[in-house]
Amino acid sequence: MNFIRALNSVWRENNTLLCIGLDPDPAKFPAHLQHRPDAIFEFCRAIVDATADLVCCFKPQIAYFAARRAEDQLEALIEHIHIRHPATPVILDAKRGDIGSTAEQYAIEAFERFQADAVTINPYMGRDSIEPYLAYRDKGIILLCRTSNPGGSDLQFLDVGGEKLYERVARLVSKEWDVNGQCALVVGATFPSEIARVRTLIGDMPLLVPGIGAQGGDIETTVRAGCTPSGVGLIINSSRAILYAGKGEDYANTARSVAEATRNAINFHR
Amino acid sequence: MNFIRALNSVWRENNTLLCIGLDPDPAKFPAHLQHRPDAIFEFCRAIVDATADLVCCFKPQIAYFAARRAEDQLEALIEHIHIRHPATPVILDAKRGDIGSTAEQYAIEAFERFQADAVTINPYMGRDSIEPYLAYRDKGIILLCRTSNPGGSDLQFLDVGGEKLYERVARLVSKEWDVNGQCALVVGATFPSEIARVRTLIGDMPLLVPGIGAQGGDIETTVRAGCTPSGVGLIINSSRAILYAGKGEDYANTARSVAEATRNAINFHR
Repeated sequence: MNFIRALNSVWRENNTLLCIGLDPDPAKFPAHLQHRPDAIFEFCRAIVDATADLVCCFKPQIAYFAARRAEDQLEALIEHIHIRHPATPVILDAKRGDIGSTAEQYAIEAFERFQADAVTINPYMGRDSIEPYLAYRDKGIILLCRTSNPGGSDLQFLDVGGEKLYERVARLVSKEWDVNGQCALVVGATFPSEIARVRTLIGDMPLLVPGIGAQGGDIETTVRAGCTPSGVGLIINSSRAILYAGKGEDYANTARSVAEATRNAINFHR
Repeated sequence: MNFIRALNSVWRENNTLLCIGLDPDPAKFPAHLQHRPDAIFEFCRAIVDATADLVCCFKPQIAYFAARRAEDQLEALIEHIHIRHPATPVILDAKRGDIGSTAEQYAIEAFERFQADAVTINPYMGRDSIEPYLAYRDKGIILLCRTSNPGGSDLQFLDVGGEKLYERVARLVSKEWDVNGQCALVVGATFPSEIARVRTLIGDMPLLVPGIGAQGGDIETTVRAGCTPSGVGLIINSSRAILYAGKGEDYANTARSVAEATRNAINFHR
């Protein structure tokens, strides 16, 4: 799968910009899953199978698996998505960032071990720290630009010669680093004017937008600020608001209802 | 173990500022280890046992383990260091960075699963992204400041209101973020004048300095630029130049010889 082409297909064929973030927290699982050894896999698998036609991507967050020694369940989950939902790209949310020789190892982790179609990366160490990922020409490289957390402003909002640091990151990635057209940027939904600003800097490059739902970002302003002229260009992520909408055995159906409502709310404003 | 106190003890009792980075690449292992299922653990264990009296820390790089599905060997390695060399702190080089709820999971990964005494963190997402680590009061939090790779200048060297971004990071960490005295900074050995600049900004805070050896940094300039007035304050890392100095069955002894020479070269200039 080529990530950018697959994303463009699934945006149109599934008519959705919604991405479901898979952040499995066993403390929040329904009771019937609590003591299964594969509870993390099974919790996510049921959500995936109940919602695949409503999303443009799934985005597992590796920290939730690593904290519980469950990398094997993450491998099984991504394999399941590829087999059962082969049109749907998987973004591994890992936010790695290191020098070239170590970045090569992280690229192997993301793309060969876990078979992700795209990975999130931290830009702080500069261009050569992302080159090992770019060598995988079909994969998506999604760089942090303007994050949705309160401390995101500490560095990202600093003025660097007449623009903000996050604007510089957007320009560097789109004009210099992304030589093969395989990059995207993370811009939080809590800052719609900054989504709009980044959109003017990067043309049609995809934006991964976390922060709607539990983090409080507004759907209408996000869509208006970030869509491309043809009404795509956004990967709008929701995690907890969908995953933990239901608490009983039918949690996956409840998740589907919330995902469907979220997709529809997004589409209403496109 | 309290990381900062342990570091101050081992600097003095072992009379060394040297840290050995454990970046195990099976392609470079001696032939007799090549087909062992626990080759990664065993390669590192022999290096550790041969050099523990020469170092102030060991620093395993998690990417090399994760790329090969060898987290279990990393767990076993850190446990081995704690049991056999209980005075020597372990820094998990992971360079994580994410919002609070995910950072909590990464802190569990580093401190509870892997039992590291300190972890490296990326500052791009700001203060609240490091708070979950700071909640572990005995642990060390080592933030990227000025990295040793060529692309390190792309963002870190930008001017932000009369200072460079890496200087702002150094000031933010030492004056605002490090409320419990548990932080340190990464500054590459390839930039000795910047090590000196950071030292003036942060007082006695420890500096983790990668980049001597394979990356070409100079020991004399690093030591003169970075030591505190009492001749400590530095964790000077060498990885490949020590790990892969020998290619035969006696590779651990060869590693010891190089480590000893490196420690002595550092001490000559203190």
